Amino acid sequence: MFRRKPRLNKSTSLKSREAKISLDIAKEVTAYADVAKQIIDLAVYGDARNRSYRRLADFTDTIGNRVSGSKNLEMAINYMYKAMTVDGLDVHLEPVKVPHWVRGKESAEIVQPRSKNLAILGLGSSVGTPPEGIQADVLVVQSFDELKRRGSEAKGKIVVYNQPFVSYGETVAYRAFGASEAGKLGAVAALIRSVTPFSINSPHTGLQDYQDGVKKIPAACITIEDAELMWRMAKRGEKIVVKLTMGATTLPDADSFNTVAEIKGWQHPEQVVLLSGHLDSWDVGQGAMDDGGGAMISWEALSLIKDLGLRPRRTLRTVLWTGEEQGGVGSQQYFNLHKVNLSNFDLVMESDLGTFRPVGLQFTGSDAAQKVMAEVVKLLAPINTTRLEPHGEGTDIYPWMNAGIPGASLHVMDSRYFWFHHSEGDTMTVQDPHEMDLCSALWAVVAYVVADLEEMLPR
Amino acid sequence: MFRRKPRLNKSTSLKSREAKISLDIAKEVTAYADVAKQIIDLAVYGDARNRSYRRLADFTDTIGNRVSGSKNLEMAINYMYKAMTVDGLDVHLEPVKVPHWVRGKESAEIVQPRSKNLAILGLGSSVGTPPEGIQADVLVVQSFDELKRRGSEAKGKIVVYNQPFVSYGETVAYRAFGASEAGKLGAVAALIRSVTPFSINSPHTGLQDYQDGVKKIPAACITIEDAELMWRMAKRGEKIVVKLTMGATTLPDADSFNTVAEIKGWQHPEQVVLLSGHLDSWDVGQGAMDDGGGAMISWEALSLIKDLGLRPRRTLRTVLWTGEEQGGVGSQQYFNLHKVNLSNFDLVMESDLGTFRPVGLQFTGSDAAQKVMAEVVKLLAPINTTRLEPHGEGTDIYPWMNAGIPGASLHVMDSRYFWFHHSEGDTMTVQDPHEMDLCSALWAVVAYVVADLEEMLPR
Ligand SMILES: [Zn+2]
Ligand SMILES: [Zn+2]
Repeated sequence: MFRRKPRLNKSTSLKSREAKISLDIAKEVTAYADVAKQIIDLAVYGDARNRSYRRLADFTDTIGNRVSGSKNLEMAINYMYKAMTVDGLDVHLEPVKVPHWVRGKESAEIVQPRSKNLAILGLGSSVGTPPEGIQADVLVVQSFDELKRRGSEAKGKIVVYNQPFVSYGETVAYRAFGASEAGKLGAVAALIRSVTPFSINSPHTGLQDYQDGVKKIPAACITIEDAELMWRMAKRGEKIVVKLTMGATTLPDADSFNTVAEIKGWQHPEQVVLLSGHLDSWDVGQGAMDDGGGAMISWEALSLIKDLGLRPRRTLRTVLWTGEEQGGVGSQQYFNLHKVNLSNFDLVMESDLGTFRPVGLQFTGSDAAQKVMAEVVKLLAPINTTRLEPHGEGTDIYPWMNAGIPGASLHVMDSRYFWFHHSEGDTMTVQDPHEMDLCSALWAVVAYVVADLEEMLPR
Repeated sequence: MFRRKPRLNKSTSLKSREAKISLDIAKEVTAYADVAKQIIDLAVYGDARNRSYRRLADFTDTIGNRVSGSKNLEMAINYMYKAMTVDGLDVHLEPVKVPHWVRGKESAEIVQPRSKNLAILGLGSSVGTPPEGIQADVLVVQSFDELKRRGSEAKGKIVVYNQPFVSYGETVAYRAFGASEAGKLGAVAALIRSVTPFSINSPHTGLQDYQDGVKKIPAACITIEDAELMWRMAKRGEKIVVKLTMGATTLPDADSFNTVAEIKGWQHPEQVVLLSGHLDSWDVGQGAMDDGGGAMISWEALSLIKDLGLRPRRTLRTVLWTGEEQGGVGSQQYFNLHKVNLSNFDLVMESDLGTFRPVGLQFTGSDAAQKVMAEVVKLLAPINTTRLEPHGEGTDIYPWMNAGIPGASLHVMDSRYFWFHHSEGDTMTVQDPHEMDLCSALWAVVAYVVADLEEMLPR
């Protein structure tokens, strides 16, 4: 975190040396004000205006959603390989084996106390039911604690979780572990309230995680509305019976690729600033927000720099991950393969929380690196996106950050991200061309300037 | 509308007489402050706290949605007849013949340029397709004007309307008349963007209206997202082919009932203050918001007055309409049957825009009546719902207002009403117990005080 006050326990000479470095870096970065302005003008007001939105619309309208192992994901990777090549970038593919889970046909209904259809989405990696489905009494709980307290009631039942939404990070535990926690107690299936703060009877999918040694039972998300309905019924003492049918199955791992596009650095081509988003999505909605937008601005940033005839000292590398939704599979493999060059990775960047109105960056790095980045984001004043939050998130760049590489995530305004996330509502309708232009401009300025500084970011 | 300044063209004596009446009515109404407080305390803080919410939850959880002609609507009417009788009210049913439209199985998909499922809801009164469905090229338009300009392109096509949402009152014209406008030009079906400002890929149903002499073609609503998708595809010059299958059919009119509950007036039992909401709904969602909430507070208002041992001079009559969604069928018949007693109707009230946080009343009546109501709403100061908007809305009380009877609609805060309206999202989850208590209190105070004043409201 950037420290505004000098530390008392530092020697005066150290303090003055630090102050000198700060002054130097401020001067060096400030000199990029003009080029930053050029990038912003091109992205927001110039020929590239609306381009990342248009590219995203063409891409998602043509292909649709792109779950790991699907024909659509293969098409998507080919599409991007061609599009970025035509754009004049240096493109290659790096093979990755990805999980291949197939949803199949699925349905659920309340049979008792009255017949009611349930909108569901089976969860990634879930097993299916027998073809004739599972029909069982329901146990509704509001938390893992309640499930534990009422453990003796779970045997042979379908456990329905009606946990309140606290935050995605916290509440997603029910989606991830709900099946195994219920399975331990002898439950026959788990239906989990969708992990979202808002719903129009919208089920949300996502990955779930079986625990080793626990019987695998089918798991699906239901809507907030239906979870609350069954909870009210249970509170009234009504016996609830649900029938669940899921054709879900896991096939052998499939061939896929991380898609890599570069502008080679003129001075240190082996040193890399990495920009990224993921190309795969779930098999519902259009994957426009999660994470078509992140992928497109990571391409767009390179286009902007290329269009302006710029070439930084270090290599700019855009990586469009595969298999992110299956647990960051593509990015983990990329790390395993490239960590041998750890010392050449200058900055890793990820956009995977929406390309809504940007406010700045979430940045993870040493105090010294924070100081440099604090100067860099000042260049974004013309589009008012100068916020630098310490501590970034980012599934796909986590291995690098964990290994000490500075990491930056696009920071967008508090938004309706989780309203649409992993649901049929993830479409172009939630995207805005101007907001995407701002994201692209921010992304390009940060990547270009960091890649062109005399020194790599301090670790 | 209440005039704050005296009119110049009135004689001084008339002005002073009016001033005296105003003073008298203010005094008379102010005397109800204590009873208003009692009603509010009971509804919001006392034994009746959360009761209208609980009643609505029991009702909708037990029965579900209640479209005209359905077994569910029959069950709902029986349920309410019994519940209000057990509550000690004077209840009877008045027979009404209602339209009996049945949705049947329905589906739609884009066949070209790529296969994509479309979430649809067929529109009330629509004809179906042949069992094998209709497959045809698509013409996407953004307005009736554009359809007119491109009239020659419509023949043999499925017309897709991608009209922007302006307001419900204005934009609903596309749902109501879209099929006939397209049918006139030889189109084979109409798919209309759902009439809502917001969507999570949510289709919304509602009534549509065939024009006499125009070929009846199938009509359904699609989502905002899919309408925009097809519009973008069309703008790119892509040929779009859609397959639509609808099993919709209209059966002979069904038997139904308006459900009427009363507290008889002690002095003028023949004079009536009428409170109302509708019991029928569409056949999607749970009809909790539209209009279970309005029905429940109209019952609750009478319960509150009865529980306090109050009995006004005039009769309080709650009418739970049937067939509202089919074009106000139950309320129109009620008017036809009871208009012979027009002079005995003091005030007609309707709640059909949600029972969210109330702000006051929308009131339609003469200047003199506005003055009285302006005093009445002051009694609602303890719950801060004292707003009196001139000009009410209200499908079901319109015939009375049109005949000169004062009419009041519950006025709630700008809300997400149309996000959920006629969709699977109309469930108990959008309702709040405290907000419903406030609505019930407001409803009861207004109805009781108006029914107990010495004079009926001036016409
Ligand atoms: Zn993502
Ligand atoms: Zn209604």
